[in-house]
Amino acid sequence: MSAASRAKRTMPDMEVIVLEKTGDVSYSACGMPYNIADAGREMDDLVVRQADVFRQKQGIDLLTGHGVESIDPGNRAVSGTIRHSQEPFRFFYDRLLIATGGRPRVPDLPGFDLPGVLALKSLEDGKAIKAHIRDHGVQKAVIIGMGYVGLEMAEALRERGIAVEMIKPGADLLPWMPRELAQVVTAELAANGVDLHAGQTISGIEQDGKQLRVIGADCSLNADMVLVAIGISPNSELAADAGIPTGPGNAITVNRQMQTSDETIYAAGDCADAIHVVTGKKVWIPLALRANRAGWAVADHVCGKAVRVDGVAGTAVFKAFNLEVARTGLTAAEAQQSGFDPAVVTIKSRSRAHAHPGSKTIWVHLIGDRQTGRLLGAQMVGPEGAAHRINAAAVALHAGMSVATFAQTDLAYAPPFGPVWDPLLTAANQLLKKM
Amino acid sequence: MSAASRAKRTMPDMEVIVLEKTGDVSYSACGMPYNIADAGREMDDLVVRQADVFRQKQGIDLLTGHGVESIDPGNRAVSGTIRHSQEPFRFFYDRLLIATGGRPRVPDLPGFDLPGVLALKSLEDGKAIKAHIRDHGVQKAVIIGMGYVGLEMAEALRERGIAVEMIKPGADLLPWMPRELAQVVTAELAANGVDLHAGQTISGIEQDGKQLRVIGADCSLNADMVLVAIGISPNSELAADAGIPTGPGNAITVNRQMQTSDETIYAAGDCADAIHVVTGKKVWIPLALRANRAGWAVADHVCGKAVRVDGVAGTAVFKAFNLEVARTGLTAAEAQQSGFDPAVVTIKSRSRAHAHPGSKTIWVHLIGDRQTGRLLGAQMVGPEGAAHRINAAAVALHAGMSVATFAQTDLAYAPPFGPVWDPLLTAANQLLKKM
Repeated sequence: MSAASRAKRTMPDMEVIVLEKTGDVSYSACGMPYNIADAGREMDDLVVRQADVFRQKQGIDLLTGHGVESIDPGNRAVSGTIRHSQEPFRFFYDRLLIATGGRPRVPDLPGFDLPGVLALKSLEDGKAIKAHIRDHGVQKAVIIGMGYVGLEMAEALRERGIAVEMIKPGADLLPWMPRELAQVVTAELAANGVDLHAGQTISGIEQDGKQLRVIGADCSLNADMVLVAIGISPNSELAADAGIPTGPGNAITVNRQMQTSDETIYAAGDCADAIHVVTGKKVWIPLALRANRAGWAVADHVCGKAVRVDGVAGTAVFKAFNLEVARTGLTAAEAQQSGFDPAVVTIKSRSRAHAHPGSKTIWVHLIGDRQTGRLLGAQMVGPEGAAHRINAAAVALHAGMSVATFAQTDLAYAPPFGPVWDPLLTAANQLLKKM
Repeated sequence: MSAASRAKRTMPDMEVIVLEKTGDVSYSACGMPYNIADAGREMDDLVVRQADVFRQKQGIDLLTGHGVESIDPGNRAVSGTIRHSQEPFRFFYDRLLIATGGRPRVPDLPGFDLPGVLALKSLEDGKAIKAHIRDHGVQKAVIIGMGYVGLEMAEALRERGIAVEMIKPGADLLPWMPRELAQVVTAELAANGVDLHAGQTISGIEQDGKQLRVIGADCSLNADMVLVAIGISPNSELAADAGIPTGPGNAITVNRQMQTSDETIYAAGDCADAIHVVTGKKVWIPLALRANRAGWAVADHVCGKAVRVDGVAGTAVFKAFNLEVARTGLTAAEAQQSGFDPAVVTIKSRSRAHAHPGSKTIWVHLIGDRQTGRLLGAQMVGPEGAAHRINAAAVALHAGMSVATFAQTDLAYAPPFGPVWDPLLTAANQLLKKM
């Protein structure tokens, strides 16, 4: 929708058709856990702009309930079926944007299709979860997976007074983090009554009377609802079936103008890949800012403007109860895999100045390259001051800045907001000694 | 003290003598307003390290109450008087660091020497203010000046239940800000019962019974205490008298190794100047991080390490009641004066995502150069999310980043912490249209 809106703003006479499989457009998907946390809020609060605004005010031919099933690049056409009438449709294009997003991954195991086993991606998913909690009086939930969405949902469900257990096959919570930082998150989850069962290979889900039972290797967990949150896959099959190449994570390969191998076909959003600013290589890191930015870039390029979309740093933040957890750039393991010679440091600092009331511990992990001296990545965990601080490191990654130069940056100081040496600077100074 | 400690850590056999005029070293000067706000806290809470730790654990020859009165570069000697005994002293050096800091500016007008007219710079000043409030049961204070310290003190005194009026000769609160942002601060001060009298030329202070009366052009303000907070001057006379050149703001001129014109004499802290990363020209912006960093650099250089201190961006933040006020880089006026062709934008955004509870207005002002496309400066005001966000812009200034590149940076997003497009990015996108 960001591409459609921007193209219409730039060239009001352009015919812009949007084919959307579901009934919903333009909603804050990332806001869903916070909405689910509040029984009194309507899910539709998350809709940023109503479909009719796009249609009537912006003149976009927005067709909801239109699921595209195939692309025919030779004839520049897309075909599919209208959801409610089951009638076929076919549209021709001069330029096509594939913005099919992603879908929750669901393991091919017994019982994952049982009622009460739910996942969260679309607004319809969000509504289904909220209705299930209400209609079944959910008192206990099991979350499969411990990533961003799983952790945000754990907090949301705890706010509703629902008991939460989390389970995953992998051995570690947030395996991309150093263990010191992950343990801070683990402690926060424990303090908020979330039980973690990591390292549990899951064999399936069974019905157990009115409840569901998730079967792990060494435990079985009963619940009134099971949430599957083990990540997403890009909806790239439509593109792949039309002969359009995909790359890392099966995401659609695009250039810096967001074009696929067919220059009349663009891809943007969670279905498309990107170039990592640190490695210069293709990656698939589906995040909201990139999706919006890519949508604008497609509109601009279609409208004839010069466009060159920069890469991503993989900057992300999430809230886990009273903790802010943030990252940007490469982890040490990713740095190694990408051919760097990583030096790492993990430090503890304070969120406010010496002797300032309310100061909390803030953790910083930095990764640098011994060979070139470059900053490669940063991670932070703390009750305050991690979410926005990470952006300083993200900008440094975009600039290809060395750790030495980053350590010399003039960051803000006042006692309520941090120590004289910002925690990022303390970490950079420590990292320099290891490089 | 940061230079002394670091030199001793690197070279334990070096003889390090510190001559300090007052009785205090190593305290958090910026923390004083927050300490004054709390009658129950001792001022000495702000001492980071006791003098005896430096003496006994670190082996520094720390001589408090030793006021240096002259430097004799020819004989590499400093002389002065011991405060309590009034005996003279003289010390010889191989390398000298001038770290004399700054002092509050006090206008040469009648009545500024009356009892109850106070200023805040040293720990002794802080103790005097706190004692005056207690001993005289201060119920009403007038603050002359409306800068960082004045505003922090206004908040501190209001927390003590003291009525506060502020007065200054200049027409505008925070004249370096665009008026839209300054008005947000003005409204916050008004909401917290602070009365502002800007544009009032002050002719002096009179005794009025037990009270003091500050005489402005159109108003006279009575108070139990008058705080003078119109800025500081560098204590550079000692250097100047020894023939060492000073520059902008009369601060001591230093190179990137913190050396003065005499390579055996260094200067660091609020008495020394710096190079601005945006203009490449000398500036005097006395702030705590720079002082600490410069102290370390002096120690490293004296110990034979390669040192090249980068410039400052003038990054600063302060809290004004429930507002965070932050800046980095040049203002539009400074940009113009420095020969740039500034384009500016001021936007309003939100501190949290669409429909996320508790979202507040956040203001961003960005300055870019039309000729080169470079980002030149940023300012932010808001109840949350300004203090740490400013650092992303500060890093961009250090990198000499263009507004176009900054607008493409991958900043963190999650609903509790900001909109999908970070307010800085929204501002950068808007600024691009004007460049």
